Amino acid sequence: MLRRGLQPEQWTEDVWREDVALMRRAGVNLVSVGVFAWSRLEPEEGRYTFGWLDRVLDLLEAGGVKVALATPTASPPPWFSLAHPEALPVRADGTRLLHGSRDTYCASAPAYREAARRIARELARRYADHPALALWHVHNEYGTTCHCDHAAAAFRGWLRERYRTLDALNDAWTTAFWSQHYADWAYVFPPRATQYLPNPGQVLDFKRFWSDELLAAYTEQRDILRTATPDVPITTNYVFGGWVPVDHARWSREVDVVAVDHYPSDSGPGAEEETAFAADLARCWSGGRPWLLMESAPNLIYEGGRMHAKEPGRMARHSLSHVARGSRGAMFFQWRAPRGGAERFHSALVPHAGPDSRVYRETVELGAALGRLSEVDAGAVEASVAVAWDAASWWALSGPGLPWDGIDYLAEVRTAHRALWRVGVTADFVSLDRGGPLPYQLLVLPAHYLMSDAAAAAVRTYVDGGGRLVATYLSGVADEYGRVRLGGYPGALREVLGVRVEEFRPTPSGWAEDVRLAGAVQVRPGVTRHRFGAGTAWYLSTPLDGGAYGELLAEAAGIPVREGAAELELVRRRARHAGWLFAFNHGAEARAVPAQGTDLVTGKPVDGAVEVPAGGWAVIRETN
Amino acid sequence: MLRRGLQPEQWTEDVWREDVALMRRAGVNLVSVGVFAWSRLEPEEGRYTFGWLDRVLDLLEAGGVKVALATPTASPPPWFSLAHPEALPVRADGTRLLHGSRDTYCASAPAYREAARRIARELARRYADHPALALWHVHNEYGTTCHCDHAAAAFRGWLRERYRTLDALNDAWTTAFWSQHYADWAYVFPPRATQYLPNPGQVLDFKRFWSDELLAAYTEQRDILRTATPDVPITTNYVFGGWVPVDHARWSREVDVVAVDHYPSDSGPGAEEETAFAADLARCWSGGRPWLLMESAPNLIYEGGRMHAKEPGRMARHSLSHVARGSRGAMFFQWRAPRGGAERFHSALVPHAGPDSRVYRETVELGAALGRLSEVDAGAVEASVAVAWDAASWWALSGPGLPWDGIDYLAEVRTAHRALWRVGVTADFVSLDRGGPLPYQLLVLPAHYLMSDAAAAAVRTYVDGGGRLVATYLSGVADEYGRVRLGGYPGALREVLGVRVEEFRPTPSGWAEDVRLAGAVQVRPGVTRHRFGAGTAWYLSTPLDGGAYGELLAEAAGIPVREGAAELELVRRRARHAGWLFAFNHGAEARAVPAQGTDLVTGKPVDGAVEVPAGGWAVIRETN
Amino acid sequence: MLRRGLQPEQWTEDVWREDVALMRRAGVNLVSVGVFAWSRLEPEEGRYTFGWLDRVLDLLEAGGVKVALATPTASPPPWFSLAHPEALPVRADGTRLLHGSRDTYCASAPAYREAARRIARELARRYADHPALALWHVHNEYGTTCHCDHAAAAFRGWLRERYRTLDALNDAWTTAFWSQHYADWAYVFPPRATQYLPNPGQVLDFKRFWSDELLAAYTEQRDILRTATPDVPITTNYVFGGWVPVDHARWSREVDVVAVDHYPSDSGPGAEEETAFAADLARCWSGGRPWLLMESAPNLIYEGGRMHAKEPGRMARHSLSHVARGSRGAMFFQWRAPRGGAERFHSALVPHAGPDSRVYRETVELGAALGRLSEVDAGAVEASVAVAWDAASWWALSGPGLPWDGIDYLAEVRTAHRALWRVGVTADFVSLDRGGPLPYQLLVLPAHYLMSDAAAAAVRTYVDGGGRLVATYLSGVADEYGRVRLGGYPGALREVLGVRVEEFRPTPSGWAEDVRLAGAVQVRPGVTRHRFGAGTAWYLSTPLDGGAYGELLAEAAGIPVREGAAELELVRRRARHAGWLFAFNHGAEARAVPAQGTDLVTGKPVDGAVEVPAGGWAVIRETN
Repeated sequence: MLRRGLQPEQWTEDVWREDVALMRRAGVNLVSVGVFAWSRLEPEEGRYTFGWLDRVLDLLEAGGVKVALATPTASPPPWFSLAHPEALPVRADGTRLLHGSRDTYCASAPAYREAARRIARELARRYADHPALALWHVHNEYGTTCHCDHAAAAFRGWLRERYRTLDALNDAWTTAFWSQHYADWAYVFPPRATQYLPNPGQVLDFKRFWSDELLAAYTEQRDILRTATPDVPITTNYVFGGWVPVDHARWSREVDVVAVDHYPSDSGPGAEEETAFAADLARCWSGGRPWLLMESAPNLIYEGGRMHAKEPGRMARHSLSHVARGSRGAMFFQWRAPRGGAERFHSALVPHAGPDSRVYRETVELGAALGRLSEVDAGAVEASVAVAWDAASWWALSGPGLPWDGIDYLAEVRTAHRALWRVGVTADFVSLDRGGPLPYQLLVLPAHYLMSDAAAAAVRTYVDGGGRLVATYLSGVADEYGRVRLGGYPGALREVLGVRVEEFRPTPSGWAEDVRLAGAVQVRPGVTRHRFGAGTAWYLSTPLDGGAYGELLAEAAGIPVREGAAELELVRRRARHAGWLFAFNHGAEARAVPAQGTDLVTGKPVDGAVEVPAGGWAVIRETN
Repeated sequence: MLRRGLQPEQWTEDVWREDVALMRRAGVNLVSVGVFAWSRLEPEEGRYTFGWLDRVLDLLEAGGVKVALATPTASPPPWFSLAHPEALPVRADGTRLLHGSRDTYCASAPAYREAARRIARELARRYADHPALALWHVHNEYGTTCHCDHAAAAFRGWLRERYRTLDALNDAWTTAFWSQHYADWAYVFPPRATQYLPNPGQVLDFKRFWSDELLAAYTEQRDILRTATPDVPITTNYVFGGWVPVDHARWSREVDVVAVDHYPSDSGPGAEEETAFAADLARCWSGGRPWLLMESAPNLIYEGGRMHAKEPGRMARHSLSHVARGSRGAMFFQWRAPRGGAERFHSALVPHAGPDSRVYRETVELGAALGRLSEVDAGAVEASVAVAWDAASWWALSGPGLPWDGIDYLAEVRTAHRALWRVGVTADFVSLDRGGPLPYQLLVLPAHYLMSDAAAAAVRTYVDGGGRLVATYLSGVADEYGRVRLGGYPGALREVLGVRVEEFRPTPSGWAEDVRLAGAVQVRPGVTRHRFGAGTAWYLSTPLDGGAYGELLAEAAGIPVREGAAELELVRRRARHAGWLFAFNHGAEARAVPAQGTDLVTGKPVDGAVEVPAGGWAVIRETN
Repeated sequence: MLRRGLQPEQWTEDVWREDVALMRRAGVNLVSVGVFAWSRLEPEEGRYTFGWLDRVLDLLEAGGVKVALATPTASPPPWFSLAHPEALPVRADGTRLLHGSRDTYCASAPAYREAARRIARELARRYADHPALALWHVHNEYGTTCHCDHAAAAFRGWLRERYRTLDALNDAWTTAFWSQHYADWAYVFPPRATQYLPNPGQVLDFKRFWSDELLAAYTEQRDILRTATPDVPITTNYVFGGWVPVDHARWSREVDVVAVDHYPSDSGPGAEEETAFAADLARCWSGGRPWLLMESAPNLIYEGGRMHAKEPGRMARHSLSHVARGSRGAMFFQWRAPRGGAERFHSALVPHAGPDSRVYRETVELGAALGRLSEVDAGAVEASVAVAWDAASWWALSGPGLPWDGIDYLAEVRTAHRALWRVGVTADFVSLDRGGPLPYQLLVLPAHYLMSDAAAAAVRTYVDGGGRLVATYLSGVADEYGRVRLGGYPGALREVLGVRVEEFRPTPSGWAEDVRLAGAVQVRPGVTRHRFGAGTAWYLSTPLDGGAYGELLAEAAGIPVREGAAELELVRRRARHAGWLFAFNHGAEARAVPAQGTDLVTGKPVDGAVEVPAGGWAVIRETN
C-alpha cells in the first residue's frame, strides 16, 4: 500500500526530517519525488545539482519510505524557453506559449525531446543503484498539444505511415468536400485556425497522431530507464479529461503498471460513482490486472471553480473504493501544502494548518487500515457486465458538424456506468478494438459512434453466439475514419439490432430518432429488442429517464436490481481460494451487510452480517 | 422549376448515373455543379483536370438536367496556402488563417484575385459551348473579411475615392475625438485589434468598403464569363446573416438574376414567417422581378446547435412560399448527403439512408407539383405596404458605443415584417437610397438609424404627398456617416413626425424615450400621430406588445386585419390577365379558403372555396 | 466650485463662443481642455498646431472660465503607430494593438515616453504664462498594460530593485513549484500566455510593477510641468475599476490634488451608496484633505450594456454627495455631446438636443447652488469608523489558484461600506501600509488577504491599546508576497482574533470555514469575539445577511443604528468654528431633518428641522 506526493524542492531540510517522521506515523511506504523538479536539478542547461535530491532519497530510505522517482520532463525550466524558443508550444491560432506555468514545450520539437532524454539519462545514471528507488515515474499527465511546424512535420510522417498514399488520405478525410484535396503531403497541416468548420477526419486523426506522438516521447524515456535499471518497473500517470488527446487503452501496453490520477468533479453523491467509474476504467486499461491510483486529493473536490472540502470519512471511502476495484494502494497529491505557487490551496495530507488537523489524523487512520488489507491484491474484481470504451469515438463526437452540439460521449458512457452502479452491478470496461473474447452476461455500447468492420464483426459474433447487447443512439454510425455508413443508421449495427433509422431528431431536451423496425420489436417507446442468432440485442434510440435505464440494463443482463445500491456500495474481489467483500456506506444511517467470514480491519469473525456505520466501510474476507 | 446541389466530386461514376435517374424521377431540371471543386479541377497550380467534369455535364445533359456551373473560387485548394501565404485572410487581431475549412483567402490579395480569374477563364473556355450550361454561378456566398495589409491598401484607395480629401474623412469619422486625426492617408487601417472602442465611422466604412471589394471580385469574374458566353445569365448566391458585410441591395444591379440561400433559424412556427421575410427581401433586391431560391435545406432547421428535422410537408410549404413570393423555383443544398466532410449531417434530398426515405419521396412529390405551377412566373407579387431595409443601418447599429447593446436592427425589421405577416398583410421591402416612387398605402421605417438628406427628403415628399408613415425609435438619428443629427432625436424625421426626443431611456426590458410633442398627438403610450401635408406620420418610441404592433400597422395602412393569418398564409401574384392565389395551411386543422378559379395541382375548378388540409397548400388560378 | 469637459477640437469656433456663453449661464469656472487633442496639436511628428488652442484659452479666459490644461498623452496620434511600431502595446498572448481607439502605447517603450515628454514640454512652454491656466491635468486615467519586451526589461529592473537577489525572488514567488526556478534575471518575463495557471507571485508583482511604471510616466511629465510653472498645481485623474493596475493610495503622494473620475454602475438605489463609496475612498487617498471629482456623468449610469438616464435631481444629489465627502467641486465628462466618435452617446451637459433640455437646465440650477456652498471647503468630513483598503489584496484575490473563483475583494469592501452606510455611519478608508495612528471607534478589515508583518503589528497594537476590530474571512491569510502563512488561517491575525481555521469551506452560495476557538467566544453562527489586551476583536468567518452586518458593525463601534439612513443620507463636515450638515433625500417622500442653523441655499434660518423634498437635498450651516 502506497501514498505519495513529496515536493522536497519547496522546503528546507528540517521540514524534510519532520516529513519523514510524519510519513512513518501515517504508514506511508512510497512517495513520488521530483515530478516538477527540473529547474532545481538542472538550473541551467547542462549544469546539474543533484546533491539535495541525494539527501532526500537517503533520508527517505533511512525512514523506510521507498521512492517513485519522476523524470521532471513535464515542466522544462525557464532557461529552456530562451535557449529553444522554437520548441515552445503553439496554439491553433498561432499563439506561442511561454514558461511561467508548467508544460510549456512541444512534444514534437527535437530540442525538447533531446533535453528530456538527457535529464532522464542523468537521473538514471545517478540513482540506478539507490536502494530507495522502487518505481520510475516518467513525466506527469501527458496531454498537452501543439500546432507548430515541428508538429506538422511529425503529423505528416504519421499520416504517411497510416495511409501510405495520398489517395487513401483524401478518401479517408473526404477531402473532395470544400476543395480540400491534397495533391502533396506538404500541403497537410495540423488543424489550425481556419475560416469555418474544420475537416472532421483531420481533427480526429490529429488527436490519434498526438496520442502516438506523446507515447513516443514516453517510450524513449522508458527505454533509457529500462537499460539503466532492467528490474525497476516504469510507468507514467494518466490524467482523465476531455482535453487530453491520449488513448490510454493503447498506451497501457507500454507501461509496467497502469497508474491514474483521479479527481472527481461533483461534490455531491456523484463523486462516489465517479470514483467507481475511474477505477473501473483504469482496470480496463490494465487488462484486469492490479493498477495504481497515483494521485487523488485528500480533502478537495474541485467543482465549478470551488474547492469543496471532503466530509469526514470520505477520503477513506474514495481511497478504498479504488482499492476495491483493483488499485494496489492509494496515493495522493500532495503531501504538504505549499506556501506559494499556483496550487498552494490544492489539498494536502499535511495542510497549511499542519499535522494538528483533521486531514492528517484521517491520513494516519487510513494508513493503519491499508496496512491490514494487503492480501486483497491477490483477488480479481468480479464483474459480469461490460461497457465499451472508445477514445476515438469520444474524439469524433467532440468534432465539428454533428447533428447536435449537445452530444457528450463521456456523459453517455458515464450514464451507462452510473445506471449499473445504482442498481448494484459492478461493470468492466472493454475496448472492442482489442479483440478477444467477451465473457459477459451483457455488453453495453453507449454512443459507440466509430466502429471498424472488425469491431462490428466482434459484436455480431458475440450476439450471434448468445450474447446480450444494449446499444444506444449514435452507435455504429461511422467507420473508423468517421465516414458515415450509408443505407440508414446505425450503420454497422443495423442488422444485429434489426432496425433502420432514417432521421435523427435531436430535441431541445435530448435525442430521438425515427426508427423503422427491421426484425426488432418495440418494447417501449425508444427501445427495441431483436433476437439475433442465439443472442438478443436491444437498441435505445432515446435516453431513458433515471432509474429506467438501470432497470433495463439489469433486466437485459439477467441480474436482479439491488435496492439502495447507491447508499451501500458493494464490490467483490475473488482469488482462487479466497474472496473479499468491500462494503461502503455512503448513506446517513448505519447499515447491516450480510456476510460470512472475517473483518480484515478488526480481525473479528463475521457471522451473518457486519454493521457498517454511516459514512464508514468494511472489508470482509469471505468464507467460500 | 429548378432543383440542385450536386457534388459529383465526392462520388464515383456509378453514383452519378444513379443520381441522374433519381433526378429525373424527381423532376429536377437544374443542378449547381462545381461550387467547391477547385482542388479537383486544379489540383496543383496551373495543372487542370477537367475530364471528370466533362463526363458529369455530359451525363446530366443526356438525362435532361441543365447545369448552373459554378466558379469554385470560394475555396482555394491547399496548394494556394503554400504558394501565396500573404493572400491568406487575417483576423482583426492579426491571426492568419490557414486552409482546412473553406474560404481561406483575402479578397484584396492580388494573388487570390489572379488565381480566381484564371480558373474562371479556364472554365469559361472549356464549357462555353456545352449544351448543359444554363447559368453561371460565380463563387459561393460572398462574405468573408480580412484585415491584412492588402485589405488596408484597398481600403485606403476606396476611402480616397469616397472622400477625396483627408479633411472630409476626418470630418466624416469625427477623428477629433480620441486623437484620431489622420494627417496622411497612409495612417488609415482597417479596424484592427485596438485598446478600447473603435471609431464607429471607420467600422461602418470598412463594412461598406468590403462589400464593394467583394463585389469587385465578383464583377471581374462576371466580365470574363460574359465575354465567353454573352447569352448565359450570370449570378452569385447571396447568404443572409449579420456576419456578412455585403449590401445585397447594391449588388443586385450587377447580377442577371438575384439568387439567395435561405435557412430559417427557428424550428417553431417562426420558420414560416422567416421564409416569407427572406423571400420578400429577395424580391426587393430583385426590384420586384422574379428571383431564385438557390439553396435551402430539404429537411433541416439549424437552431441553437441542433439539426431539427422538418415535419412532413414543411419542405414543400417552405419551397412554395418562396415561389409564391417571386422565386422562379426551389433549389436545395444538397442533392446527396456526403459520407464525410464538415457538412456530412447537413440535410440532403437523398439522405444517408438513401432514396428509400421520406425526404426523397417528398422530393418527388414536390417536383411533380412544381411542374404544374410554371405559369405563375408571369405574375407580380401583390403588396400594398413597404418596409424599409438598409444594410448600412444594420452595420451602424452593430457598431460600438450605442446607448444600449441590446439594439438589434435585424430584429426590429423582422418584428415589423412579422407583425404585418400575422395580420395577413404581404409586404415589400424598399431601399430608400434607391430613390424612385413609393406606391404604397403605408411605409414602415423600423430603426432606420442612418438617413441621408436625400432619403429624409424622399420620406418627407412621400408623406407630404399623402403617404402614411410609421417610423420607430432609432430612425433618422444619424446621417449616412453615422454622425448624430443635432437638435433632438429623431433628427432627420423630427419635422415629419412632429416630435422631439431629448433623451433615450433604454430599460432592462426594451426601449423608451422622453418624447415632446411638436405638432403630433399622442394616440397611446409610446405612439404619436402627426398630420404632415396631405399625409400622416406615426412615431413609435417604444416597442408594442405582440398583436398591438400589427393592429397599429394595419390601421395605419387602412387594411383590415385578417384573423388566423399565421396559420393560413395567403399570397397573391397578379399578371395583366390572370391572378394566382397561394394558400398555405401551417395549422393543425383543415381550412377552407374562399376562391374562384382553378386548382393548379389537381386541375379541378374551384367554386367558392378550396379545402386546404392541415400542413398542406394549394395554388389557384383565380378568375379575374 | 468647478465643472468641465470641453472638447473644442471637435467643434467650430462659433460653437466655442456659444459654449462660453452657456458656461457662464451655468456658473462654470473651470474646464478641462485638451485631454485627447494630441493629433490636433501635433498632427505629424514634431509639427505643432497650437493656434486653435490659443484661441480657445483666450476665449475661455475672456469668459471668466479657468482651464485645467491636459497633456494629451493618453492617446498618441496615428503617426505614432507607424513611426514607432515597437512602442505599441502587446497583450499577454502576443497580439500587438494598433491605433484606432485610444491609449495605444506601451508605457515602458522609450519612444512613447520620449514623445510624451516632448508634447508636455511644448505645452508647458507655450501656456506657462497663460492667465487661464489654473491646473495641469496630466494624461487621462492611467491604466493600460503591456506585455512586450520593453515591459519585460523594465519589469526585470523593478524586480532587481525590489529583491536584490534571485534567491529572494525565487523564494518570494515559490518558484520551486512547477519548475519555475530562475537561474538568471534574463529568464523573467511578464506573465504571458502560458500553458496553464500562472505563478500568483509573478502576477501580483507584475501589477505592482506596472503601477510604479505608470507612476514613473506620470512623474516625469509632472517634473517637466513643475519646472515650467512652479506655482500651478498638477494632478492626473484616477479611474476606478478592477482592470486598472494602479495603486492610487501610493500614487497620491505624487499629485498636488487627488482627482478621481466616478461613474456608478448600478442604476438602482445602489448608485447613491456607490457614490459615497468612491468619495470616501478618494478622501482616503487624499489623506483627508479636499480632493476633486474630475469626471462624472451628468445624465448616465452605464449598467449591463445600457445607458440609463438619471432621474430628475439625481445629478445634483450625486454631485453634492461628492462635495459633502470632500470634493472641492463637481466636474463632468463631457460638456457637449459630440456628433461622432465612440462616445457620442455618452452623457453631456449640453446634449444632442442642445441647451433646450432638462440636462442643461439642471446644470444651470446646480451651478447656482454650488456657488453658495464654497465655505464648506474649510470643513473636515466626520467619520468614526475606518475600513481598510488594500489594492495589493485586490490584485492577489484576483489571481490564480484561489479556493473559490467567486472571491471578489471589491465586493467585500463594498459590502462593508454599504452595511455602514445603510445604518447611517460615515466611514473613512485607511491603508494599513501607510502606518500612523488609527483614531477610530472601529476598524474593519474586509478580506484583507495580504498582510505584511508591519501591518499585522499595527492591527495588534491598535487592538491591544483598546481598539475595536472586525475582520472577515480571507484576512491575514498571506504575507505581502502572497505566500500563505502556515499553522492555520487567518495567519497574521490568529492571535488577535483568538481563532484557528483548519479548512476553508466555500459553498455554492458563499463562504464558510471550520473555526476552532482559541480564546474567542462564538457570539452567533459565523461570528466570534475575542478580548485582546484592552480591546476587542470580532471575526466573521461567513457573510452576514442583509441588515445583520450593519447592525454588528454598529454594535462593535458602539454607534446607534440610524433607521432609514439609505433614504435620508446625512453627512457632516466640521471646521474649528463651524459645521455643515448635508442632507440628501433619496426617497419618494419629503423628510424633516432635525437641524439648527442656516440653510446655505435659501439663506434662511433653520430652527429645529429642515424639510427636504423627495429627491432633494439641503446644506445647513450648523450652530455649534
